[in-house]
Amino acid sequence: MSEPTRPLAYALANRDRFVGELKELVSFRSVSARPDNAGDMNSCAKWLSDHLNRIGLQRARVIPTRGHPIVYAEWLHAPGRPTVIIYGHYDVQPADPLDQWSSDPFLPVIRGNNLHGRGASDDKGQLFAHLKAVESCLRSVGKLPVNVKCLIEGEEEIGSRNLASFLSQHRGALAADVVLVSDTAMKTPHHPAITYAMRGALSMEVEVTGSETDLHDGLFGGMVSNPLKGLCEIVAALHTSEGKVAVPGFYDRVSEVDADERAFMAANGPSDAELLKIARARNSWGERGFTLYERTTIRPSLTISGIAGGYQGVGPKSIIPARASAKLNFRLVPNQNPSEIERLVRKQIARLTPFTLQSTTRTYLTAEHVLVNRHDPFIKAAGVACAKSFGVSPVFRRSGGTNPAVAAFQHTLNIPTALIGFGLPGDHIHAPNERFHLPNFHNGIATSILFMHKVAAIGRVRVSEPMRRELTARQQHVLVGQP
Amino acid sequence: MSEPTRPLAYALANRDRFVGELKELVSFRSVSARPDNAGDMNSCAKWLSDHLNRIGLQRARVIPTRGHPIVYAEWLHAPGRPTVIIYGHYDVQPADPLDQWSSDPFLPVIRGNNLHGRGASDDKGQLFAHLKAVESCLRSVGKLPVNVKCLIEGEEEIGSRNLASFLSQHRGALAADVVLVSDTAMKTPHHPAITYAMRGALSMEVEVTGSETDLHDGLFGGMVSNPLKGLCEIVAALHTSEGKVAVPGFYDRVSEVDADERAFMAANGPSDAELLKIARARNSWGERGFTLYERTTIRPSLTISGIAGGYQGVGPKSIIPARASAKLNFRLVPNQNPSEIERLVRKQIARLTPFTLQSTTRTYLTAEHVLVNRHDPFIKAAGVACAKSFGVSPVFRRSGGTNPAVAAFQHTLNIPTALIGFGLPGDHIHAPNERFHLPNFHNGIATSILFMHKVAAIGRVRVSEPMRRELTARQQHVLVGQP
Repeated sequence: MSEPTRPLAYALANRDRFVGELKELVSFRSVSARPDNAGDMNSCAKWLSDHLNRIGLQRARVIPTRGHPIVYAEWLHAPGRPTVIIYGHYDVQPADPLDQWSSDPFLPVIRGNNLHGRGASDDKGQLFAHLKAVESCLRSVGKLPVNVKCLIEGEEEIGSRNLASFLSQHRGALAADVVLVSDTAMKTPHHPAITYAMRGALSMEVEVTGSETDLHDGLFGGMVSNPLKGLCEIVAALHTSEGKVAVPGFYDRVSEVDADERAFMAANGPSDAELLKIARARNSWGERGFTLYERTTIRPSLTISGIAGGYQGVGPKSIIPARASAKLNFRLVPNQNPSEIERLVRKQIARLTPFTLQSTTRTYLTAEHVLVNRHDPFIKAAGVACAKSFGVSPVFRRSGGTNPAVAAFQHTLNIPTALIGFGLPGDHIHAPNERFHLPNFHNGIATSILFMHKVAAIGRVRVSEPMRRELTARQQHVLVGQP
Repeated sequence: MSEPTRPLAYALANRDRFVGELKELVSFRSVSARPDNAGDMNSCAKWLSDHLNRIGLQRARVIPTRGHPIVYAEWLHAPGRPTVIIYGHYDVQPADPLDQWSSDPFLPVIRGNNLHGRGASDDKGQLFAHLKAVESCLRSVGKLPVNVKCLIEGEEEIGSRNLASFLSQHRGALAADVVLVSDTAMKTPHHPAITYAMRGALSMEVEVTGSETDLHDGLFGGMVSNPLKGLCEIVAALHTSEGKVAVPGFYDRVSEVDADERAFMAANGPSDAELLKIARARNSWGERGFTLYERTTIRPSLTISGIAGGYQGVGPKSIIPARASAKLNFRLVPNQNPSEIERLVRKQIARLTPFTLQSTTRTYLTAEHVLVNRHDPFIKAAGVACAKSFGVSPVFRRSGGTNPAVAAFQHTLNIPTALIGFGLPGDHIHAPNERFHLPNFHNGIATSILFMHKVAAIGRVRVSEPMRRELTARQQHVLVGQP
């Protein structure tokens, strides 16, 4: 297949209009976390559905879920060609603290090369690049080189609560060969990055209770058990002195990564010194025998992210608190199962709870890991498309973070996801003054056009579910030696 | 000396006026903790000084300190007779939460047998009983049976910050034989109590810091040290598994209490079951080999009274916090020295801090213990006076709490303190709807009159400082076997 000259020319000719439309999309106050913005969520979904229809996709519609609606549209007129799911999210983080913004987060403005506004980078700008790529093909040559299913959710910032069940329910209708997602960052402004692994997550809270009410520590100090002390003992016992998580069975299913992959990581990942600099940390910590990049990507971790208990004001107060609680964030790796880890953690916390106290645990979130075979032809195609549009070969990296949506695609539809980042580390996502670097928007459109054409050239690699399973097993084997 | 018939008759005849005057005293918003109430503090001090003058005491005045003023007056016309310091405090706790009061905390009202208002019991009502006893003597027979120095401070609720230095500076002028304090509670409404020991205190805060800012636990979890985890490890290591404080040297100076005193405590103190019932606790905890009453009075304790670190809102948050802090309340016993314990604790915390983190400690408060020889003739006199006025012999008990003011009298002036409680356990001190049981007010006045007459009958036991020291050493020996 030749270079997609006409779609690329169309995109070039329509740059300004595309940016104008993106501003319109960014102006919706689609904050999924705020019940007050439910109306804005619906308006934004409607706008997107209309837009998908206008650019030439078919069956565009807003699909209700138990939470915020999903927007869907498709174009399936490339028989025998692969099917690409374009995924993104139209919901954004809350904009507070508002007083730290230099302009209204929902009145997007361009300053220099950046479009400023909440969601400009995460994820409206990155998502919109793919929609404009689709438009550029359909409006210039009247067709797409591949089949496309466009799926845009409204709950990514609140954990993609309803996505996995939606994918399960519509597994047949959503059959595809690859998912294309841009919701990550480039390495630097001139160096693109493709993410091929993310950690899973398990977020829990443990509450320890003692007496019915706070007690005076003068009158009762020394005769009753203190839940805050008990909580500290539990937390302290959840790590070994070597920095490992001290939950029996926790590492049983952790895949060991083979020497080739570790060498690749060492060559392509950040060094210890770079990571410490980014973290502005003086000292490193953690499991021996692993680089810092490895510790945060191929090894699981436990972070105590918050503790609340007793008096927190100024000065002293004479109390033995009645209760105390800690928030635990686990990051999980292949092939840890979040539900199994949850059971092991609950069991260990029960075991560690002093018999003079009571503990209860609740689970806020579980998410599977993401692991894409970077040798997969579709992922390689993403690399080639990136290299062509940005002029630099992308770096292939693992992320220590979690994306429940991408995990849902991997674990429910069992297809690879091409995670091409158009954001920049300095985009201030989730923070005041979020912005999107517009050259990345335009390069992103070109990347998406080129990707679809590369994928078309590959053809349909995986034809049957059993074969797909076998291939996936092989992919895992490439990356992950069995323990 | 015969019974003080005329003073007691005077008190009986003037009951209603006394209660009216007490209402006036309770109406001052003398909240020492609130800078806004500085004017109210001064007005209350002025009112008290005028009142002391009006009831016949001499040299009444308001003495400025670096904080709130001290009110002083005296009557020294009983040569050769003992001198009694009457101590109390005119400051009160803040009244919040205001919406939980059934009447205005500073518009005192009588309901049934109780006077309701902030400070009615703690300590205005209890203090005022002694002033009315003085008035009853001076206005009925024109003299007091003993010399009296009346010292009323305005900083008891904020740790008696300036009292110890005031006592040191005026050690000569304040020479006396016994201190009379009513700022504690009776055992039950019909059973008076005399407190003869209180624990010392050391309140500290330890803060542990890691990176400069909060970090994303997905991106950095596993490679940097978490101050909140480090804090939990430090806190968990501050107790042994047997419930002892794990600070080297902590118990070195702890006096062991001899078998006779422990038998006395067992006979006169609350049982384990009673204490658990009061605490509404299912299980006891603490050092083996001691009853719960002993654990909270003759044994030191450490309570973690608060921890703040990281995210405390609803649900999860992906952070490694940059800092975390814990508040530590130590209760100390004879002969632990708060400053020495402070050094030992600082040293141990430094030792326990992981080398990947930094810790700092600050000290909020140190207070010495109180230990009065319950065989001291003046303390026995207090028991006799109580028994006569209430019709029941008082119970002699130790308290696990701390009173820096009483400690200052013991450790600066080196004289015993008679701690006679007129409050009730149900008076709601420091809480909404504070009240004072008025029968205790009237019995308190009688107790005070009888106490002064008993003390006069004893005469001056201690004539010289060396003799006083020797007697004190003997008293300690009675109570406290050498370790």
